[in-house]
Amino acid sequence: MTADTTPAELEQALAAAATAAPALAAAEPAVRAGWINAVADALDAVADDLVPIAMRETSLPEARLRGEIGRSTGQLRMFADALAEGSLLEVIIDTADAGAKPVPRPDLRRVLVPLGPVLVFAASNFPFAFSTCGGDTASALAAGCPVIVKAHPGHPELSVQTAAVMVEALRSAGAPEGTFGLIQGFDVGVIALKDPRITAAGFTGSVPAGKALHEIAVTRPEPIPFYGELGSLNPVFVTPAAVEARGKEIVAGYVGSFTLGVGQFCTKPGLLFLPDGHGLRDQLVEAVGGVGGGTMLNSRIKEAFDTGRDRLHKIEGVVEWASGGGATLLQTTLADLMVARSEVLEECFGPVSIVVEYDGLDELREAIAAFDGNLTATLQAEESDAELAAEILPLLTEKAGRVLWNGWPTGVAVSWAQHHGGPFPSTVGSIHTSVGVTAARRFQRPVAYQDIPDAVLPAVLRDANPLGVPRRVNGVVSTGEVER
Amino acid sequence: MTADTTPAELEQALAAAATAAPALAAAEPAVRAGWINAVADALDAVADDLVPIAMRETSLPEARLRGEIGRSTGQLRMFADALAEGSLLEVIIDTADAGAKPVPRPDLRRVLVPLGPVLVFAASNFPFAFSTCGGDTASALAAGCPVIVKAHPGHPELSVQTAAVMVEALRSAGAPEGTFGLIQGFDVGVIALKDPRITAAGFTGSVPAGKALHEIAVTRPEPIPFYGELGSLNPVFVTPAAVEARGKEIVAGYVGSFTLGVGQFCTKPGLLFLPDGHGLRDQLVEAVGGVGGGTMLNSRIKEAFDTGRDRLHKIEGVVEWASGGGATLLQTTLADLMVARSEVLEECFGPVSIVVEYDGLDELREAIAAFDGNLTATLQAEESDAELAAEILPLLTEKAGRVLWNGWPTGVAVSWAQHHGGPFPSTVGSIHTSVGVTAARRFQRPVAYQDIPDAVLPAVLRDANPLGVPRRVNGVVSTGEVER
Repeated sequence: MTADTTPAELEQALAAAATAAPALAAAEPAVRAGWINAVADALDAVADDLVPIAMRETSLPEARLRGEIGRSTGQLRMFADALAEGSLLEVIIDTADAGAKPVPRPDLRRVLVPLGPVLVFAASNFPFAFSTCGGDTASALAAGCPVIVKAHPGHPELSVQTAAVMVEALRSAGAPEGTFGLIQGFDVGVIALKDPRITAAGFTGSVPAGKALHEIAVTRPEPIPFYGELGSLNPVFVTPAAVEARGKEIVAGYVGSFTLGVGQFCTKPGLLFLPDGHGLRDQLVEAVGGVGGGTMLNSRIKEAFDTGRDRLHKIEGVVEWASGGGATLLQTTLADLMVARSEVLEECFGPVSIVVEYDGLDELREAIAAFDGNLTATLQAEESDAELAAEILPLLTEKAGRVLWNGWPTGVAVSWAQHHGGPFPSTVGSIHTSVGVTAARRFQRPVAYQDIPDAVLPAVLRDANPLGVPRRVNGVVSTGEVER
Repeated sequence: MTADTTPAELEQALAAAATAAPALAAAEPAVRAGWINAVADALDAVADDLVPIAMRETSLPEARLRGEIGRSTGQLRMFADALAEGSLLEVIIDTADAGAKPVPRPDLRRVLVPLGPVLVFAASNFPFAFSTCGGDTASALAAGCPVIVKAHPGHPELSVQTAAVMVEALRSAGAPEGTFGLIQGFDVGVIALKDPRITAAGFTGSVPAGKALHEIAVTRPEPIPFYGELGSLNPVFVTPAAVEARGKEIVAGYVGSFTLGVGQFCTKPGLLFLPDGHGLRDQLVEAVGGVGGGTMLNSRIKEAFDTGRDRLHKIEGVVEWASGGGATLLQTTLADLMVARSEVLEECFGPVSIVVEYDGLDELREAIAAFDGNLTATLQAEESDAELAAEILPLLTEKAGRVLWNGWPTGVAVSWAQHHGGPFPSTVGSIHTSVGVTAARRFQRPVAYQDIPDAVLPAVLRDANPLGVPRRVNGVVSTGEVER
């Protein structure tokens, strides 16, 4: 067990981050990209050292953890590439127009600048990809913000070792002291969140913790944006045609997805809606029986899972279909779900899921409408369902940030087009994502420069476009020069 | 005086907005653009009817109000054009990549969708451009959100008449019932803000009112984004070289800017920093003496102004240089300002401003550092100041959302590159703007569609790009087709 950060250490971390902020803001995008690539390289180089610590602290298997390091360093490099390419800065230039109505228009040049020091609350279930070196950290660094990570107590030693590698890599690459720091301790995190030097916060964790921290962030004397990924049920809706055509495949995909990583994914499908008369019960029971046992991340999470599963079990109308060493499958009907809606639709983190049987299209619509916000919603359908799908997809869009067709929600690709964030309570701040290139936008604010002489402008805004970034100039995107 | 909206009327407005939301979301961008253009045309057509009402209720002069209608309808048309062009949807497409590491990547297509019904708290000082038919309304409609405006009590009759024209124009153009509504009454606005059918809110007004409403919005059981433009001092910093070269011009520009519209602009320059020995006092006193009297928006604002001006007057070290029928000019030194920092740096809405005398570059840096967030910060400098300016501009960037060179902050051009929003307390939500095309982004959230068959996708995401919108496809922006 590592010790909590002391008040003196916290002050040092906050002061260093605040001092680093202007230097990071002034560094050209390609320079920041170099620092981020250096972090990625350093982490890849010490994978053999970090993986055993992670295995010991999280009980996750080696292959998964090695893959997660690859995901994390790939993510860092993606942000570095995006920085170097320049679209992240969202440059818009409108040159002066003396003839504009009702008044002449000045020369205006807009660019995104970093907010300042960002506090990241690390998650337990991805000790690399959503923790010390995870997506919040990578996207904030790409935005040009110093980062202080509040370590998750589920993997304290790994957090310290990862942070040490990152700090050393940044130092060697020439990044300012204070670009990255790590703090430990619940109270320490809350104190940091209230500190005026912190300008934004990212969080991945439970609904109660996320709501409490969100309230602190937004009711500070100087409110700051708080991006929280809280809880999600990730419902999957299956049409009769899909059962008919791919019943066996759906059973395998569903059970694989809800038990993956011992069900400890924010995108675990918590409910599978099957049409009455689906005939898949025996296959589902068999598949769940074949799931091997797995150790959960820590005893606190295991206890919460046991409590949550027992709670679901006791709901009127919910019955157990299967319970093996590794997973539990429950069943109910849509009618029973609607009676106990708020109890059934409460996330239980771990390898449990509920089959909900529905009767006809009206009930399918009713089922979708029953949900609050989710990270994902999935439709399992056939080409012959096109008309139904055209009606259903807008309903799913209202409820989720990612809508899938014939896939499974676990597995979140890291790319430009990804969106990981849905309506409340799946996230606080549904207009932003915590995965994908656009995640950096959470930590940037626009500034417009009016009639500034070319020589004084930030390089990225100068007529000659010396950095060669894409810019919308008088309505047309190009990497060329401005003519004025 | 118009009556407060009744509970039954409020329920009707909220229900209608909620019902309209999916229809607005489903309407193609060009169709929404047509509705918005219809509103602009209708407002232009009734300018002769609305202006006399506005003059009576706000005491603003006819020419200003006619210009403001032009600004408002121009703004609506700008959003309609941007919608039709398509960049507002921020489409990003990453096609499937079976060879991606560490895992194969699915086909992901991201687009921005409307949040849902938006509540707009109208401002008093721009009865058109920041009120019923103002920027928040225009940007939310462009985003595809139904809008409910909480009318400002300073111009109730104008609000009702404007809303009637807008509702009729939308109906005639074929927009869904409930696309736009108006409510009146302070308590009614708070009840609406707490209603779960409202998904975001915009506000322009005072710091205390904005902070109170912000807290309600973000601590609801289901928190929503609250975009508030609160208060700003808009400091102007003048270098010795600028005094030398353009002293007379600076005096005229400054006095004109802080007394424009009886000082009732959120971008009024509240402080002018002049170097010791500037020698402009007599010219400033003369210019202020020549400012004609003007009637303020209403008696409540006049009383608050008188109180605020008297408060500034009584601060130790603050003296009066001039006070005419229309304006008051105060003076202090940077040393005195720093002693009474929080009192001097409290906005006083109306025709008053403070000259602050500073001694040398260190004091100039100290002066900039003294500020919290502002909508704007201005540097008056010469080409010979280039080195100084290169150091000062990043400091101004930390404190403001728009940085000007040799201009005056009043007058906010409506264009793609505009940014109207700075660090707290000038706005809550500094990463967004309330003016300019990107203001629509406040009311949109991304959704990523994963592996959806082309025929089922929203038109804007289909391979053939039937709507011809700009899309980032595998990293390259084009209006062409997707090949897969």
